[in-house]
Amino acid sequence: MGYRAGVVGAAGFAGIELVRLLSRHPEFDLAAATSDALAGTPIAKAYPAFTGVTDLAFSTHEDTDFSAFDVVFLAVPHKAAMGMAPDLMAAGVTVVDLSADFRLKDPAIYEKWYAPHTAADLLAQAAFGLPELTGDELAAAAERRAAGEAVLVGCAGCYPTATSLAAAPAIRAGLVDAAAPVVADAVSGVTGAGKKATERTHYCFANENLEAYGVGTHRHTPEIEQILGLEGRLVFTPHLAPLNRGLLSTVTLPLAPGAAPTTEELVELYRDFYAASPLVSVMDAGVQPRTASVAGTCRAQVGVAVHPAGMIVATGAIDNLGKGAAGQGVQCANIVFGLPETCGLEEIANPV
Amino acid sequence: MGYRAGVVGAAGFAGIELVRLLSRHPEFDLAAATSDALAGTPIAKAYPAFTGVTDLAFSTHEDTDFSAFDVVFLAVPHKAAMGMAPDLMAAGVTVVDLSADFRLKDPAIYEKWYAPHTAADLLAQAAFGLPELTGDELAAAAERRAAGEAVLVGCAGCYPTATSLAAAPAIRAGLVDAAAPVVADAVSGVTGAGKKATERTHYCFANENLEAYGVGTHRHTPEIEQILGLEGRLVFTPHLAPLNRGLLSTVTLPLAPGAAPTTEELVELYRDFYAASPLVSVMDAGVQPRTASVAGTCRAQVGVAVHPAGMIVATGAIDNLGKGAAGQGVQCANIVFGLPETCGLEEIANPV
Amino acid sequence: MGYRAGVVGAAGFAGIELVRLLSRHPEFDLAAATSDALAGTPIAKAYPAFTGVTDLAFSTHEDTDFSAFDVVFLAVPHKAAMGMAPDLMAAGVTVVDLSADFRLKDPAIYEKWYAPHTAADLLAQAAFGLPELTGDELAAAAERRAAGEAVLVGCAGCYPTATSLAAAPAIRAGLVDAAAPVVADAVSGVTGAGKKATERTHYCFANENLEAYGVGTHRHTPEIEQILGLEGRLVFTPHLAPLNRGLLSTVTLPLAPGAAPTTEELVELYRDFYAASPLVSVMDAGVQPRTASVAGTCRAQVGVAVHPAGMIVATGAIDNLGKGAAGQGVQCANIVFGLPETCGLEEIANPV
Amino acid sequence: MGYRAGVVGAAGFAGIELVRLLSRHPEFDLAAATSDALAGTPIAKAYPAFTGVTDLAFSTHEDTDFSAFDVVFLAVPHKAAMGMAPDLMAAGVTVVDLSADFRLKDPAIYEKWYAPHTAADLLAQAAFGLPELTGDELAAAAERRAAGEAVLVGCAGCYPTATSLAAAPAIRAGLVDAAAPVVADAVSGVTGAGKKATERTHYCFANENLEAYGVGTHRHTPEIEQILGLEGRLVFTPHLAPLNRGLLSTVTLPLAPGAAPTTEELVELYRDFYAASPLVSVMDAGVQPRTASVAGTCRAQVGVAVHPAGMIVATGAIDNLGKGAAGQGVQCANIVFGLPETCGLEEIANPV
Repeated sequence: MGYRAGVVGAAGFAGIELVRLLSRHPEFDLAAATSDALAGTPIAKAYPAFTGVTDLAFSTHEDTDFSAFDVVFLAVPHKAAMGMAPDLMAAGVTVVDLSADFRLKDPAIYEKWYAPHTAADLLAQAAFGLPELTGDELAAAAERRAAGEAVLVGCAGCYPTATSLAAAPAIRAGLVDAAAPVVADAVSGVTGAGKKATERTHYCFANENLEAYGVGTHRHTPEIEQILGLEGRLVFTPHLAPLNRGLLSTVTLPLAPGAAPTTEELVELYRDFYAASPLVSVMDAGVQPRTASVAGTCRAQVGVAVHPAGMIVATGAIDNLGKGAAGQGVQCANIVFGLPETCGLEEIANPV
Repeated sequence: MGYRAGVVGAAGFAGIELVRLLSRHPEFDLAAATSDALAGTPIAKAYPAFTGVTDLAFSTHEDTDFSAFDVVFLAVPHKAAMGMAPDLMAAGVTVVDLSADFRLKDPAIYEKWYAPHTAADLLAQAAFGLPELTGDELAAAAERRAAGEAVLVGCAGCYPTATSLAAAPAIRAGLVDAAAPVVADAVSGVTGAGKKATERTHYCFANENLEAYGVGTHRHTPEIEQILGLEGRLVFTPHLAPLNRGLLSTVTLPLAPGAAPTTEELVELYRDFYAASPLVSVMDAGVQPRTASVAGTCRAQVGVAVHPAGMIVATGAIDNLGKGAAGQGVQCANIVFGLPETCGLEEIANPV
Repeated sequence: MGYRAGVVGAAGFAGIELVRLLSRHPEFDLAAATSDALAGTPIAKAYPAFTGVTDLAFSTHEDTDFSAFDVVFLAVPHKAAMGMAPDLMAAGVTVVDLSADFRLKDPAIYEKWYAPHTAADLLAQAAFGLPELTGDELAAAAERRAAGEAVLVGCAGCYPTATSLAAAPAIRAGLVDAAAPVVADAVSGVTGAGKKATERTHYCFANENLEAYGVGTHRHTPEIEQILGLEGRLVFTPHLAPLNRGLLSTVTLPLAPGAAPTTEELVELYRDFYAASPLVSVMDAGVQPRTASVAGTCRAQVGVAVHPAGMIVATGAIDNLGKGAAGQGVQCANIVFGLPETCGLEEIANPV
Repeated sequence: MGYRAGVVGAAGFAGIELVRLLSRHPEFDLAAATSDALAGTPIAKAYPAFTGVTDLAFSTHEDTDFSAFDVVFLAVPHKAAMGMAPDLMAAGVTVVDLSADFRLKDPAIYEKWYAPHTAADLLAQAAFGLPELTGDELAAAAERRAAGEAVLVGCAGCYPTATSLAAAPAIRAGLVDAAAPVVADAVSGVTGAGKKATERTHYCFANENLEAYGVGTHRHTPEIEQILGLEGRLVFTPHLAPLNRGLLSTVTLPLAPGAAPTTEELVELYRDFYAASPLVSVMDAGVQPRTASVAGTCRAQVGVAVHPAGMIVATGAIDNLGKGAAGQGVQCANIVFGLPETCGLEEIANPV
């Protein structure tokens, strides 16, 4: 008998990907998938990929008794998550939240970018869920959970994951100028724009098109700055491209005065950095990551190169719903429950 | 210790999909993947989806000693397979062939559509690999293998699989006019056109385009006719559409004189027919299969409806590389080796 | 000074394509584009392809005085068109309707497939707009218009256009069995599903997917049957594929008893049939039409082949918004106004 | 009678787009289209978009007598162009070159990035073809041509065009720090990778994928630096995304000390800058360019915003084969021949 797991907001894109991952997870048993909008509808009717796979239907959040659950994954919008997490934790349920509500350590920053925080007392104990970079927080959470506590994980967003995996090794090694701006131009597939049918997500407007959006205003900015220690120095521009799943972040980092690594040395440094991280691969010098090579998985590929203008150009490729959302949630849950980090996440991307 | 498995022609699209499936299969151990063109190249270099997954490199067919293998999957062009199978079987190795070489029972038909057959003596003992429709042949092969024989499976092609799964229940129930023509219009994703870089597979020519091809001349015609008993009565027209993986066959079958089923009765009939087939789902009346819901998997979805003009319109959706090639090969191997049919094939398609 | 032209329902996909075509048409002056939903919005804001091209804004239908217009194109849903056409014609305005309201000659058939007809008296005088097949009706309308009458054109739908262009020459030549069923399997790009943002038109559900829909129930069935004289004998199945613009219809026609043409003879016959039709090209024997080669234009490509099972397989490729809707509307208007048929329609598809 | 025009290298993607544009150009008469590889093949056979449009066939360069031509467009690889231009000019033919051979003013820089220059004497007289930024050079060339001289235009590349249109107004206004690095991350559709069928251009590898390439090494770097006066300060990273046509460059420019414009002021500044440039549109504040809105045309859209980190983020969207290649060539030819700049370039992108 595995751990009893639930997904709240299961009909959204991150939610249904959690359903997919948990349906085949050897240690978590998916026992409830809530969607107020689709309550009563069989999952397989809303998402026919589940035809012949599961008879489970969506339930309402209200009618679902989570008290006997070990873990609940929240795949709801920001603000909704901070309304749900306290009750769940009070009932002894570990919460893995994919929303933005428990990512930012400083409630003032949360309020500036989102709204007043109604569960700010939980921020201090929330572990930030980006295992390759916040292993200590997750290890501490795992210990607390092993001791019987319900714990809370606020998983990193999609753009922050790809951007930080690409930039962190160089920054943490002191190779990056601590005063100069860092530029991250990132491109996402359309699943990143969510399930809601809008003009923006209409096939005929998204197809055969490239565009930037949210220039200077995207809410992932403070999150990336927090992870990388870049307060006020990040110029982050997201873009939309015509594919379902995939996110590529290209980060341009000015070398610190005196730093003059070769590309090969950087690759070496990055490989050491991720030596204990089975889901992150650092590409050979001269080879760039491909999002297609990680689509449908929780894997990440990172590339790094020295640019003659005195910069490091680092690229990170993930599946925005995999390592950028649901997969990362499962990875964090694995760690918190003392399972192997990759448990249930061994899928290999379609080679073609 | 599992069964020792090899893939010949592993660098092609069906071959690399076999590598993907066997890399995570709990009972088959992938011990060799040959490609004369890429021999010596790490698989992960040619197909970066394998980065961080495997260190295996392609080997040449010549230099690979298969004598201690339990099973070899052939993902080579027709004519090449019939040159390899006899030696492998003589060495006691079970052969699962994805090419056309061992599908047609009658060497004269093979010669008419392909070339003279150089291993015609093996045709009689080759089991046809489309488990839902040829379970008896595969069961017999499994018995022979259990008794120590090397056996040979000639797996169904992609178009024949989708078309036959859609049409067989109606035909076998005697609902279809045995004298009138049957029309199958099928659409495939571009992986069906193979790995070779040509003008036809160039992104910019395949993208945003629909076209028919091989009108009246496609080699899958005799194979479908053989499976369904339609000698000379099949009008099969394949088409190419802009997607990677996915194949949809729409089959229009004239009702037999006197037959007047409702769509609901047909759905019932089809569900009975596939009751023991975990990888085939029959959609509710009024619901049509979606290729996206089976992409990356070995599953199939079938829809069926009565048309007021006195016809049955049946549709079958598969992943041409999954249930249409590599997945089906693994499914057949599972059966022949006495494993559960779906072993290693439990993947769920990306819901979105 | 050209003819004064307006587009009603200009914010939908067919409507905005009319706006595009009329914006550069040398003889029609686009003077109004109505959209009740977007009234007041500059066209370029809703459709940024018009940035720098036009300052025109959408107006409401109500507030637009069409009395001084020469021609109004209706790109509104069925039922809406038959409510607008009588008033416009009473005001002396020629109406080119892209909806289904004036296509079917028999109001009983209209009622069976759509709704009771409220302007059935206009059906007799409506010219059917598919110039290559109904040149006589359009020529008569042109004469009446030249004599000062307002005329009405009910343009053919997208599936009927591609299907009929492919099938008509063979049928009219008496080569097709007049008793046996005809199968048309057609595939459309997603613009065919309309502008409304729904789950079906969401990028992430339409992308990388193939599916049939409306099996046995699609409303273009009676229209195709009317054009081709196939009452009750047409088995028409539409499909959706992941591209913006393009529609391919593959029509399988049983040869009449005794008919035994070669493919080359059919190509010749088809070329004679379309000799005076500059927008339809018949492909060489063995060559199939490509929708990409007509995308963005009012052109059509037709292919034809004899199938050994005693059938003709004919394929027709169009842009569903071009020759299948807006382009055809302009082509009909050209004819009715005595202009060269291709006036303003000379665009060449992107070769790649 | 128009000017006699030829296209050399007409079977490549830029070449065939020239053929498309010149086929409908009111002042240039396309009289020859060369392709050594496809000589003798009708254009419509190689590119079926021309079916029913032209009977012209490709000819060899060798066998084509250009001496009576007014203008020849070179759409050949670098190095080939500099071998052809001198003879053409000696014969009195104006040359519009789309290759890199006549873009860089300094032959040493050409040699560093490409090869030794064999026609370096022509560099001084070559006009740089990016009309919105080098109008003076083109005006001077037009005067020389009017005086009877053959002139030479070296048209800007695709990435340089989008990047420079986005960045130039801010830089030329002195708003950009003259010492700090400028980052340009640009994304191109697959036509940018050329017609050659390779693994990189294979549909199944390019589809559903994002990747960077040529990090720190792309040959468009010195060209952009030359246009914008950024010697050694440009960090340019190109990317590939799954679409046919479209190129988006996102340029991050550090504000000069003391400069503190608002986004609205920048938009105003940019609109003034491009007031006389009919093919460039500056988007409203808060609105971003879309490549789909310029696809198939010679138009460009530019967006600009102030970023709170003290930067300008400017974006430029073009069709890489239109304004980024063939369209720009025709625009330059229009100017040099004293025609309206937009002659034959009035196409409006598909609104959807």
